[in-house]
Amino acid sequence: MKCRRCRGAAVIELRRHNAAFCGPCFELHVLEQVRKAIKAFSMFSDNDKIRVAISGGKDSLALWDILVTLGYTTTGLYLGLGIGEYSDVARETCRAFASTRGLELREVDMPTRLGFDIPSAAMAMRRPPCSACGTSKRHLFNDVALEVGADAVATGHNLDDEAAVLFGNVLHWSAEYLGRQHPVLPAAPGFVKKVKPLVRLGEREMAAWCVVRGIDYQIDECPNAIGNRHLGYKEALNQIEERSPGSKAAFFLGFLERGWPRFADSAPADDQLGTCSACGSPTTAEVCTFCRLVERAGGHRGHEPLSTPVAFGVRS
Amino acid sequence: MKCRRCRGAAVIELRRHNAAFCGPCFELHVLEQVRKAIKAFSMFSDNDKIRVAISGGKDSLALWDILVTLGYTTTGLYLGLGIGEYSDVARETCRAFASTRGLELREVDMPTRLGFDIPSAAMAMRRPPCSACGTSKRHLFNDVALEVGADAVATGHNLDDEAAVLFGNVLHWSAEYLGRQHPVLPAAPGFVKKVKPLVRLGEREMAAWCVVRGIDYQIDECPNAIGNRHLGYKEALNQIEERSPGSKAAFFLGFLERGWPRFADSAPADDQLGTCSACGSPTTAEVCTFCRLVERAGGHRGHEPLSTPVAFGVRS
Repeated sequence: MKCRRCRGAAVIELRRHNAAFCGPCFELHVLEQVRKAIKAFSMFSDNDKIRVAISGGKDSLALWDILVTLGYTTTGLYLGLGIGEYSDVARETCRAFASTRGLELREVDMPTRLGFDIPSAAMAMRRPPCSACGTSKRHLFNDVALEVGADAVATGHNLDDEAAVLFGNVLHWSAEYLGRQHPVLPAAPGFVKKVKPLVRLGEREMAAWCVVRGIDYQIDECPNAIGNRHLGYKEALNQIEERSPGSKAAFFLGFLERGWPRFADSAPADDQLGTCSACGSPTTAEVCTFCRLVERAGGHRGHEPLSTPVAFGVRS
Repeated sequence: MKCRRCRGAAVIELRRHNAAFCGPCFELHVLEQVRKAIKAFSMFSDNDKIRVAISGGKDSLALWDILVTLGYTTTGLYLGLGIGEYSDVARETCRAFASTRGLELREVDMPTRLGFDIPSAAMAMRRPPCSACGTSKRHLFNDVALEVGADAVATGHNLDDEAAVLFGNVLHWSAEYLGRQHPVLPAAPGFVKKVKPLVRLGEREMAAWCVVRGIDYQIDECPNAIGNRHLGYKEALNQIEERSPGSKAAFFLGFLERGWPRFADSAPADDQLGTCSACGSPTTAEVCTFCRLVERAGGHRGHEPLSTPVAFGVRS
């Protein structure tokens, strides 16, 4: 197997691209795909302050590494979810990544700062943990970005993630969710711009990036995620992809081109949003979903800053 | 397990409806679902002449039986595809069904009437047999219906079929195909109305209908279909359904309600269609796909009637 670019020995085959690459040329391929996504969807300008939401997993650490490599100004944001040992390992992995590279990292520890964790919130809400976790991440990453200032929050959602979410969305044909599924959610009053620069890269590519670049990431999946619906959708799509490489990309990128524009008007407009009576965030209800979750889980919000900086000297 | 309606012993459980039925109450359930589909999509009027496209399989024979039970005026149309023993068994199955019930049947035998069969057409076109077969069925059922007169051609596509086709269509986001995927394709110059009255019923329900009603149907799948993409889509959806009963119905019926209207304008309008220079059918090309297939397969069209009536005395 030879590298498509330099004809040297290849280390990874990408059936979807009908290509194989050696390590250095694979890095170029990944950077090119991210550049392409950033440009196609007008994600950033060169001098934007980008906050990268990191979990300690391969995708978010690879994303941070890629954005730094591309020369962007970044800060990592880590959210401690309080999911036992899983969260302990995640935090140490993020800290090690940032300190080795001399990068700026900010942390929000939910149990100490908000007085509850994801498992107890899920129990209090009688909802799956992934639901409480998603609500918390969406809200808190936005709040921290507003707190520290940001032109955009970047998340590590890759092509496999987006295709699986899209599959779930078309299974229900929720026009609102379909209208919101885009690699860029523009800034709006109370909302920082959200971007997903990895939408042109699959899970396997992100794992390979970490290997090639020597990134230590947390390999274990979150124990709460095992067996959830999202993973079922991924499996179903993997079977289709196995048989017809490129199906996932055609599904998601085809949606962006020919499906999304027909649903784009279904997301609630800014002027339909009111203000949460508890925290002031934009919401369609009187109290936003996150504040209801905090209340039910017996947590507290308080007025002190959400995030704390974790300092590590200067980049060498 | 008790019947939901009469509390007698149930013979079939339908997880999607969270219900079980005895034989007679299951029949009522099926008739109700078909009535509901006919009404919701304005498929027929009471005195319409309905031509039922039958293959010998469970769905199309069940459909014919159901439409007769509901009191509609029907004729069966059978198309001999020339797929070896499979087609021989299919023809005999259809004839036996019609003769036992004293129903009117018309047949078109492709090898004798058109001078080619599906396997040779597929080879000549270098396309999968299912593609040549689909093209032939669409064209010939329409032609026969025009020949004998019809208010509608009804086909036995069930919920599983439609969900799998929809899955294929969203994987590619072809706006044109999505715009055309509806249980009713209205009549247009050169086109008879096409309807799919079984879209609210799954494969298992159709098989159960045949068992309960004592219908002998061809159980073997077409040998050409084995391993095709469509079956791969069905499998993927079956896994989702297994985990969340009702997913397939939500997917397809949700599409009709909230997806289809956003694509309905994408099917080519009547005034964009020209006339096939070989057969006079509406087409977007100079020669329609079916006539190109006939030519390449070395077949002929001729001017004699396409279909022959198969007579069986009178219904007892």
